[in-house]
Amino acid sequence: MSRVAYVDGRYVPHRLAVVHIEDRGYQFADGVYEVLAVVGGGLVDEEPHLLRLARSLSELRIGAPLSAAALKIVTREVVRRNNVHHGIVYLQITRGVAPRDHSFPKSVKPVLVVTSRRRKPADPRTVEDGIAVITIPDIRWQRCDIKSIALLPNVLGKQLAKEARAFEAWQVDRAGQVTEGTSTNAWIVTADRDVVTRRADNAILNGITRLAVLDIIRGEGFRFVERPFTVAEAKTASEAFLTSTTVDLLPVVRIDGDRVGNGMPGPLSRRLRERYLAHAAAAA
Amino acid sequence: MSRVAYVDGRYVPHRLAVVHIEDRGYQFADGVYEVLAVVGGGLVDEEPHLLRLARSLSELRIGAPLSAAALKIVTREVVRRNNVHHGIVYLQITRGVAPRDHSFPKSVKPVLVVTSRRRKPADPRTVEDGIAVITIPDIRWQRCDIKSIALLPNVLGKQLAKEARAFEAWQVDRAGQVTEGTSTNAWIVTADRDVVTRRADNAILNGITRLAVLDIIRGEGFRFVERPFTVAEAKTASEAFLTSTTVDLLPVVRIDGDRVGNGMPGPLSRRLRERYLAHAAAAA
Repeated sequence: MSRVAYVDGRYVPHRLAVVHIEDRGYQFADGVYEVLAVVGGGLVDEEPHLLRLARSLSELRIGAPLSAAALKIVTREVVRRNNVHHGIVYLQITRGVAPRDHSFPKSVKPVLVVTSRRRKPADPRTVEDGIAVITIPDIRWQRCDIKSIALLPNVLGKQLAKEARAFEAWQVDRAGQVTEGTSTNAWIVTADRDVVTRRADNAILNGITRLAVLDIIRGEGFRFVERPFTVAEAKTASEAFLTSTTVDLLPVVRIDGDRVGNGMPGPLSRRLRERYLAHAAAAA
Repeated sequence: MSRVAYVDGRYVPHRLAVVHIEDRGYQFADGVYEVLAVVGGGLVDEEPHLLRLARSLSELRIGAPLSAAALKIVTREVVRRNNVHHGIVYLQITRGVAPRDHSFPKSVKPVLVVTSRRRKPADPRTVEDGIAVITIPDIRWQRCDIKSIALLPNVLGKQLAKEARAFEAWQVDRAGQVTEGTSTNAWIVTADRDVVTRRADNAILNGITRLAVLDIIRGEGFRFVERPFTVAEAKTASEAFLTSTTVDLLPVVRIDGDRVGNGMPGPLSRRLRERYLAHAAAAA
């Protein structure tokens, strides 16, 4: 079966899915996106994803291309047409097509693109062994709370991680504190079993998986605190992990080559991962 | 005559000029661009523009889609096919089309887009009366020396300027010093007739018009210094102006509503503008 994409009002074969060269997403990164997990054919945490999408659009003063109800229908239809049972659905909205000029065009219609693809669950070895991260300076703009497509620094950071044979790069602000990964949120567990992750300020994206895991932590009665942490604190933490829609929750066992804890995924990370997977499976 | 664009190896009608939705320029702002002025059918400062383009590509490790010689031929052909005598030519190169994944794809072919359009010379009143700028915090990433298409903060800044009925927004770093405009370089002239503009560090794009004006200043024997300046210093300067490929050199007579000098374009700004226009006209 060939893949199908939704582009600006039409369902089209993926290989023919195109946008105009003067789409402001292409010339200015003037757009936003969301990635939702599809589990058992259902959408995980659809409501918070759509709320965040609406917030990103509002922050950039981009109009909604469709009503929330219509957007849900299109999203489901793209998943259905691509026969995705376990995978992701990707939504992108740009300000629209207009002759190139930095300021907002007077009259412009937002462009919506939706794609979906299958994706295997995380490699069990990755989960069993944990993953490595490196740390790099956070050189991004100061509105990382907006889920914009201006992802060039994230691309460069992820590439650095890949070349260091690491899974992710944790970005570090001028104060020496970890902000987040290039496409994941960063967490540690202290010796006192406090789960720590940065408060959702302008320096990070407030991950939907981050929010779900915080809910689980509350529900399970674990202690947590939202505050920044340094690389040094992370290296001497009892456990570390990262979260995102596409990778769920993965234990971090090395930071810049240094072992975290005993170098194996910790019990709290394992527990939270199990609980998160159960939460995601409930979408089916 | 209908417009023609060059897209990934083909000359196509502008309205049919499209790129794939998984072009990394569209999903990640993973690309660079240049804008050249066309004066009398000739390209102004073509060599330094192409050198800067090569540098931007190199910094992002994107391959050149064409040799420098072929790129020049395509650029000229796009100008010719659009019958542009006075205007601009726009070149954009992205890393290419690949399934969405942050790190660099293993095998990918860069995508080149070239467009050209007519543009009237600056409104004489704008030149006679000067223009207003506002100042805003510089919230951009830390590699503004790379001419990337990740221009979302520049878009937001230019929009703020427009809504304040100003021509441009000068961005101010955490130290209180002006970096540059959202699409122009910033200059002042001190009471001692020193021309001042920020050194080309990672916080600004080293404008080709900036370099040409520096050459003119040297040639004319004026004094200049490359150093940052604060908003307060700019407001009490004797003159101020801005430069870019598309606007040449425009006198700045108001900053955040406060007059610069006597509120009229200063003699040095006028002189430099005349000399720059003569330099540009030599391209014909």
